Amino acid sequence: MIRFESDYAEGAHPRILEKLILTNEEQTPGYGVDIYCDRARQLIKNLCQKDDCDVHFLVGGTQTNLIVISSILRPYQGVISAISGHINTHETGAIEATGHKVLAVESEDGKITAAQVKAVCDQHHQDAGRVHKVQPGMVYISQPTEYGTLYSLEELTNLSRVCKEYHLPLFVDGARLGYGMVSQINDVWMSDLANLCDVFYIGGTKIGALFGEAVVISNDAYKQGFRYNIKQRGGLLAKGRLLGLQFETLFEDNLYFEMSLHAVKLSMQLRQAFTEKGFELLYDSYTNQQFPILPNDVLEKLSKKYSFTYWKAIDELHSAVRLCTSWATKEEYVEQLVADIKAL
Amino acid sequence: MIRFESDYAEGAHPRILEKLILTNEEQTPGYGVDIYCDRARQLIKNLCQKDDCDVHFLVGGTQTNLIVISSILRPYQGVISAISGHINTHETGAIEATGHKVLAVESEDGKITAAQVKAVCDQHHQDAGRVHKVQPGMVYISQPTEYGTLYSLEELTNLSRVCKEYHLPLFVDGARLGYGMVSQINDVWMSDLANLCDVFYIGGTKIGALFGEAVVISNDAYKQGFRYNIKQRGGLLAKGRLLGLQFETLFEDNLYFEMSLHAVKLSMQLRQAFTEKGFELLYDSYTNQQFPILPNDVLEKLSKKYSFTYWKAIDELHSAVRLCTSWATKEEYVEQLVADIKAL
Amino acid sequence: MIRFESDYAEGAHPRILEKLILTNEEQTPGYGVDIYCDRARQLIKNLCQKDDCDVHFLVGGTQTNLIVISSILRPYQGVISAISGHINTHETGAIEATGHKVLAVESEDGKITAAQVKAVCDQHHQDAGRVHKVQPGMVYISQPTEYGTLYSLEELTNLSRVCKEYHLPLFVDGARLGYGMVSQINDVWMSDLANLCDVFYIGGTKIGALFGEAVVISNDAYKQGFRYNIKQRGGLLAKGRLLGLQFETLFEDNLYFEMSLHAVKLSMQLRQAFTEKGFELLYDSYTNQQFPILPNDVLEKLSKKYSFTYWKAIDELHSAVRLCTSWATKEEYVEQLVADIKAL
Amino acid sequence: MIRFESDYAEGAHPRILEKLILTNEEQTPGYGVDIYCDRARQLIKNLCQKDDCDVHFLVGGTQTNLIVISSILRPYQGVISAISGHINTHETGAIEATGHKVLAVESEDGKITAAQVKAVCDQHHQDAGRVHKVQPGMVYISQPTEYGTLYSLEELTNLSRVCKEYHLPLFVDGARLGYGMVSQINDVWMSDLANLCDVFYIGGTKIGALFGEAVVISNDAYKQGFRYNIKQRGGLLAKGRLLGLQFETLFEDNLYFEMSLHAVKLSMQLRQAFTEKGFELLYDSYTNQQFPILPNDVLEKLSKKYSFTYWKAIDELHSAVRLCTSWATKEEYVEQLVADIKAL
Repeated sequence: MIRFESDYAEGAHPRILEKLILTNEEQTPGYGVDIYCDRARQLIKNLCQKDDCDVHFLVGGTQTNLIVISSILRPYQGVISAISGHINTHETGAIEATGHKVLAVESEDGKITAAQVKAVCDQHHQDAGRVHKVQPGMVYISQPTEYGTLYSLEELTNLSRVCKEYHLPLFVDGARLGYGMVSQINDVWMSDLANLCDVFYIGGTKIGALFGEAVVISNDAYKQGFRYNIKQRGGLLAKGRLLGLQFETLFEDNLYFEMSLHAVKLSMQLRQAFTEKGFELLYDSYTNQQFPILPNDVLEKLSKKYSFTYWKAIDELHSAVRLCTSWATKEEYVEQLVADIKAL
Repeated sequence: MIRFESDYAEGAHPRILEKLILTNEEQTPGYGVDIYCDRARQLIKNLCQKDDCDVHFLVGGTQTNLIVISSILRPYQGVISAISGHINTHETGAIEATGHKVLAVESEDGKITAAQVKAVCDQHHQDAGRVHKVQPGMVYISQPTEYGTLYSLEELTNLSRVCKEYHLPLFVDGARLGYGMVSQINDVWMSDLANLCDVFYIGGTKIGALFGEAVVISNDAYKQGFRYNIKQRGGLLAKGRLLGLQFETLFEDNLYFEMSLHAVKLSMQLRQAFTEKGFELLYDSYTNQQFPILPNDVLEKLSKKYSFTYWKAIDELHSAVRLCTSWATKEEYVEQLVADIKAL
Repeated sequence: MIRFESDYAEGAHPRILEKLILTNEEQTPGYGVDIYCDRARQLIKNLCQKDDCDVHFLVGGTQTNLIVISSILRPYQGVISAISGHINTHETGAIEATGHKVLAVESEDGKITAAQVKAVCDQHHQDAGRVHKVQPGMVYISQPTEYGTLYSLEELTNLSRVCKEYHLPLFVDGARLGYGMVSQINDVWMSDLANLCDVFYIGGTKIGALFGEAVVISNDAYKQGFRYNIKQRGGLLAKGRLLGLQFETLFEDNLYFEMSLHAVKLSMQLRQAFTEKGFELLYDSYTNQQFPILPNDVLEKLSKKYSFTYWKAIDELHSAVRLCTSWATKEEYVEQLVADIKAL
Repeated sequence: MIRFESDYAEGAHPRILEKLILTNEEQTPGYGVDIYCDRARQLIKNLCQKDDCDVHFLVGGTQTNLIVISSILRPYQGVISAISGHINTHETGAIEATGHKVLAVESEDGKITAAQVKAVCDQHHQDAGRVHKVQPGMVYISQPTEYGTLYSLEELTNLSRVCKEYHLPLFVDGARLGYGMVSQINDVWMSDLANLCDVFYIGGTKIGALFGEAVVISNDAYKQGFRYNIKQRGGLLAKGRLLGLQFETLFEDNLYFEMSLHAVKLSMQLRQAFTEKGFELLYDSYTNQQFPILPNDVLEKLSKKYSFTYWKAIDELHSAVRLCTSWATKEEYVEQLVADIKAL
């Protein structure tokens, strides 16, 4: 079985394992105050072209989302998210478990617009009975989105402007950030995120690390006490250096972007193969995820050799599936699948 | 600087890194349903001599404590713990953040007794105004305790009996379980824990793993929905196999106990050195932690070469410190320190 | 200004105030264990034709909803509700503040169907990745709904059957229960609720009491510890007898239903006036709330003399408003408004 | 049975009932924005000699404590309280249910000192591992305390100074505030509380109201969004005017203080009777609660005619009990009890 079902099916990039071995016997203080974390933090600040941000390392995405969001909101506030946002669909109510409602707004492509955010806020603040409603307290978006789509710099700038206008912190979930940054249609760089958002994170788990997400806090207002929050939610890794040395490896030689590029190139080959064969795509993704709509008999046939994520039924005869490529996807696997698509 | 401040200063046992490398390119499904997790689960069930328990793998201790405890208690219940229990002192209110009070009971040696648990319950249930009080809902203990002490089989059996009598689940935090099991004074084995407790966990982070804790749920009543809880609290590792293959390595050849024994032997050498030199020990530990009471000038002198955890001031001239040995502690480091103690 | 904006604009039925005065100097124990609460409990059990239910008295509706729901759900579970349900729209995230997601399902008329509940559950339980989703844990409906509509006995029976099939407790918010029971189209009685639901409540605040909601727990599984939950959430009234004597007054002579009937008769007069004048109704309500769609200039004109709740814009020229009648609505007020509608 | 067990055994002062009757048919907007609430707010601001404070009306004490505290603390912070504080002992973990630990400090007399608060803060902030601990985030005290004792103006001023120094908001639970203010040893007035505290509340439930507590927020930092918090926790009374008109009645003619004085005079008669008879008092109370230590046979004898709150066993032969007087306590009841004590 060749797995295209996720971008976390393998271990880590060999250079990360090498670094683990090389440093294994060193003694360091725990909880992320070691030299590897320090170095990784500086590399990330450099990438952001911003030295006055705080960088924290966490283990996974749901953990990161719940810690960031609960650290920012007042008790009566909720977080605006696309209805398809990871926090609204795939985190078992992790945000609600910290006491906050996800204020889901409609989205066809996984993105939300500045106008939508403005509308939610206006509706709330113009409502005479607003104390009976959850107050919008921040905005959560994913870059790339759960559908593989990307915010353009213009869209992100507009969102950021509306957020500032309504005093809403903007938080970007970058679980697959690298796969977005190397996309041929991307024009949002790390420094843009650092400038336009209050908090964002750079995903490691899905891009070459064993695990790990790097949270970047640009806005001073949300820096205070963040490590307490990490500890309280069970996110403070004892051997914190494991996170530091992974992110050091990812960013000291552009490995993060090289791996991302590898995945996205292969994803574009899959995209081309599906469209050339006449299959429609559910979402218009130029990143590492593709969502072809396949006849069910085709799907059944391909599923004997390849694993996908079943996405949803389109009609009685067709289904959409998700295929992920990753830093670890072998070119020959993609070639095989492309050939099998052509041969259908 | 030679570090005795914690038992998580180094990476992992080389065999774990080897296994990581060996399996790195394999594709597995995520979230702990892979073959490595399955094998590790079976090894642990074998150790417990109990096949009908559930085994889950989590990343860290605070995470484990908050997930287990919040998965068991009803909203109005609290957890009985020694005042020195990790959940009461070193987890930034992680339990309270899930909505539950820690019902702390006095303890000199880090342990609580069956009689204390009985007293708390009797006091509650005999109180006419008990609905105004937090209802005792479960019991949390650590084996070994935060002070390095150990429950004997008799003590644990008594606790277990009282817990059953009052319908209180008993949960054992085994963050350092191996270091307890190999102690010369220990008579509590894995199968005893599986029989006498409702839930316990086997710590990996402090005993040779990069990270990881294995939760064993013996009581059927607490099995249902546990994976939902893990996910909701941000504890479901995407590359779950990393946990499985670590615990497989720890338990397939008794590596876990070999490493534990190494640490405890070295700890006993330190104990002997301190006592022979006439220093008192704050707690009577036969596990991998020692708590000597040192004159402040001695402490200052030793601190130039060795790092300890400052524990507390005893009087104006003396302080207690904590020294941990671990699976990774080098014998020559202990020899050096022993020599330096003798030479004082 | 004549107020039709809510059904809680006045104080309480005079007989309730009389009882307050009559009993004012009596000394009773606190917290709801007095003789008045006992009598009121028995009256409600009699109405339910069910002696083995528990009856608790709470102060308000949001308080009741959050206490009941958080007392039932496991941490990873959510509550299914119509998208228009009070808990989803008008309680400032009270349910989320206790840690639980509201699983909102579409609804045009304020009701949800057995088929919808079944669909949510089937979708969840057939999902291989369900531990990443909030598990449906109970069902919340309102009788009458927030739109003034009513579940028929057949609809409620179907809902109840599906709930039992999926082990989902069914909870009915009866904040306006009396106004539903006396409706000409109603066929659901108190004993039906006691039989078909696990928990429901009988609203007092909106039907003649100063304040107060009576929670009826039919299912033994949810009785245990309920008073602890009330206390913990700040809902245990010190002078609990105030609740008991109000509900005793409401139910000892059918006052509750008399008052409800008064309100609904007046509401039907308003309904008739609007429809005869050719105005459409947004929802088809036979209870104490009417939702006419009015031209904005008509609305402006009427608003000089009467207060309504603005509901929503229908188009640029029309808006829907809500009018409530209550136990306290004066007949001459309704006559005036009817005349003013006719004269438009 | 003559009840001395609590100060909430009766209804309300007759003038409050009169006002209820007088206003019963008036229509007002809901949720505390009516004319009665406005007037009551102004009366309280006048008493505080401070016009720029916010005044909110809530139903009960536990509700008030949990709303105020959860509205102020960041997630990782706890609230410092005397170990005997109501929030630590008699609220079923209401504070923990909002996610926060109560940081209990020792107290013999129900009070905590500025030095204790300073010590807790210093210990925390000097701790290198402080992110593993709950951060002290505010201070909770009761005036009078649960033991009937009072903070002097000097003690309160010192506490306030330390709180300001450590940026800790100071919150005063005044459930029995009136009974403290009229005490012969009191030198803390309403304006002192408004100046020295960030938030305090004036209890109505125990002093002549049917129910109700008036929260005064002096510090601008804690004003924002407070009504949202009230609603979210189920504390926003639909017929909010019931609270307004009660507090208007309490404060428009000094009724609050007259009633308090009545209770405290009677309490001092009881105090004198017990001490003259040679019984010791567990706490030195000059307010409306007395805590005599009685031989068990005396207690048994008195208990046939009078109800007390059993407080605790002192030794095998003696117990302490609590007696409360209130605004409603009849003089002849106290005379009878005094006579019975003398006759022992």
